Amino acid sequence: MRATVMYGAFDVRVENVPDAQLVEPTDALVSVTRAGICGSDLWPYKSMEPSETGRRMGHEFVGVVEDVGAEVRSVKQRDFVISPFLWSDGTCVFCQEGLQTSCLHGGRYGDPGVDGGQGEVVRVPEADGTLVVLESKPNDALLPSLVTLTDVMSTGFHAALAARVGPGKTVAVVGDGAVGLCGVIASKRLGAERVILLGRHDQRTALGRELGADEVVSERGDEAVERVHELTDGFGPHSVLECVGVEQAIATAVELARPGGAVGRVGVPQQESFPGNVPFWKNVSVGGGPAPARAYIEELLPDVLEGRIEPGRVFDRTTDLDGVPDGYRAMNDREALKVLIDPA
Amino acid sequence: MRATVMYGAFDVRVENVPDAQLVEPTDALVSVTRAGICGSDLWPYKSMEPSETGRRMGHEFVGVVEDVGAEVRSVKQRDFVISPFLWSDGTCVFCQEGLQTSCLHGGRYGDPGVDGGQGEVVRVPEADGTLVVLESKPNDALLPSLVTLTDVMSTGFHAALAARVGPGKTVAVVGDGAVGLCGVIASKRLGAERVILLGRHDQRTALGRELGADEVVSERGDEAVERVHELTDGFGPHSVLECVGVEQAIATAVELARPGGAVGRVGVPQQESFPGNVPFWKNVSVGGGPAPARAYIEELLPDVLEGRIEPGRVFDRTTDLDGVPDGYRAMNDREALKVLIDPA
Repeated sequence: MRATVMYGAFDVRVENVPDAQLVEPTDALVSVTRAGICGSDLWPYKSMEPSETGRRMGHEFVGVVEDVGAEVRSVKQRDFVISPFLWSDGTCVFCQEGLQTSCLHGGRYGDPGVDGGQGEVVRVPEADGTLVVLESKPNDALLPSLVTLTDVMSTGFHAALAARVGPGKTVAVVGDGAVGLCGVIASKRLGAERVILLGRHDQRTALGRELGADEVVSERGDEAVERVHELTDGFGPHSVLECVGVEQAIATAVELARPGGAVGRVGVPQQESFPGNVPFWKNVSVGGGPAPARAYIEELLPDVLEGRIEPGRVFDRTTDLDGVPDGYRAMNDREALKVLIDPA
Repeated sequence: MRATVMYGAFDVRVENVPDAQLVEPTDALVSVTRAGICGSDLWPYKSMEPSETGRRMGHEFVGVVEDVGAEVRSVKQRDFVISPFLWSDGTCVFCQEGLQTSCLHGGRYGDPGVDGGQGEVVRVPEADGTLVVLESKPNDALLPSLVTLTDVMSTGFHAALAARVGPGKTVAVVGDGAVGLCGVIASKRLGAERVILLGRHDQRTALGRELGADEVVSERGDEAVERVHELTDGFGPHSVLECVGVEQAIATAVELARPGGAVGRVGVPQQESFPGNVPFWKNVSVGGGPAPARAYIEELLPDVLEGRIEPGRVFDRTTDLDGVPDGYRAMNDREALKVLIDPA
């Protein structure tokens, strides 16, 4: 079969690899219908040390079950399924709490011995715990939005929850990438009164307005803080969604927040420590991390199926497998916001 | 009148100062019945630059109203009142939200022109917003617990709320000072299933056990993390109360927390930035700051009046005004846990 393999910085190849097959009795084989390139795929794209064996890529995919292991109960052949970006057993204490990102027996797609989503077929470990089954095969027009549930929309939703977005709240979303735009959708869905999007890419902020942003602030750093505070009676927004992950964005997010407010951070941090100057006297809280998409897929799915939210609009380019390397390049050059893969 | 003035590190004096008097029509004059020395008073005690004018000290006090300004409505002569450690107008947007620590027109006792609580009489600005009136004069035996509501018990409660303590939760309290011990009380009050107190002072941890701690861990740093994780199935506690404020304690608090858990920090940080390595992948949140004691006094008061909680037990020494400088010394030398002042 064909799959995407990264061999080092700026070296992404689509090549023939051994066919995916069932290994454990809890596995399912899923034929990929659509997949995504994630913003977090760009970090290794820019920095990966050269590797002879390479690393399978892709953790955002939806597809059709081809086969299941002997112990799989909740998934069967021909089911249409959505996979969260991590696999999880669904039974451990953290899965039971809805924090499947901390599953005791879970793991990451693309790790050694595990397929990536940017290919033809994926072996999904712990299929019963991992996969969400749709009642029927969805219309093609819904596929982009369904792919966002695997990661980017769930991540925007996680940011909004961690930032305690709710009715009457003023929200600032730091970052106009796909996560930030999904954060706008999630904030409106949670009843935010007013959403301010911080970003400087005209096309993306224009889309952000269509998705629900009331205002756009294109300044950065201290100037952004000043501008947002001007827009919010000098106090700042109740909720700040940090959707970037670099040091300046985190610092800005924390400074933006109104006293008593909350920062939800979901941008994968580029360093382990938290660089923000979390202000003690303001009683600002900081929460977030990797989104338990497995929990959120079920929560958000009805809204996607019934057309109340359309997060698939963050995809502005579609490619076949051959075009995946150029998809990485286009996203890295900010020529594309987010690339959808149709492997067929 | 007599009041406590700090002139520099290790230089606390009780001296004659001009009598407190009404200045604004919104002021009240309160004759101090009992006051406390706060752990946070020890920071300037150890580090204050020499000052010729000195600084009035004390922000924990209860007392009797002597006189009120023309515009004061909710407080009258002879009322017994509790003051939170900051004054606040009760009407601004933050006061209305219950975050009186961010009051737009509030301030700190001891700032220039404002009395401190460690004296005979205090001019309380914004008396209507600041003071909580008791229906009748309390029994003397309740006075220590009432004084804790002004700051230390409210602060422990704030830590527990920020750490999302609740029924079924396992809680770690970092620090066996008066705030940490009040954090133990607050955690039990909120229904915590199990409270682990981290501290190494035998008398204090023994009191902590009496106040509700189920286990005591005397290790520090990495060893403390290891020990607490051993006690909690390897995962860590759901809720961590950071009641110290120094770098190592904050780092320990963040490392202790179970995935998806919460750290409530109330120890006044000794540096502005947050030094903890807030782990992204664990989805740990960090919240807290100065406690809105004005809100919590009303919430906790019935429990004190009816004897359900007894936070006044953190006071292990009582002094008159003359003994205040030695009270500072005793707390700084860890000879006393917390000193109560009876100025009469």
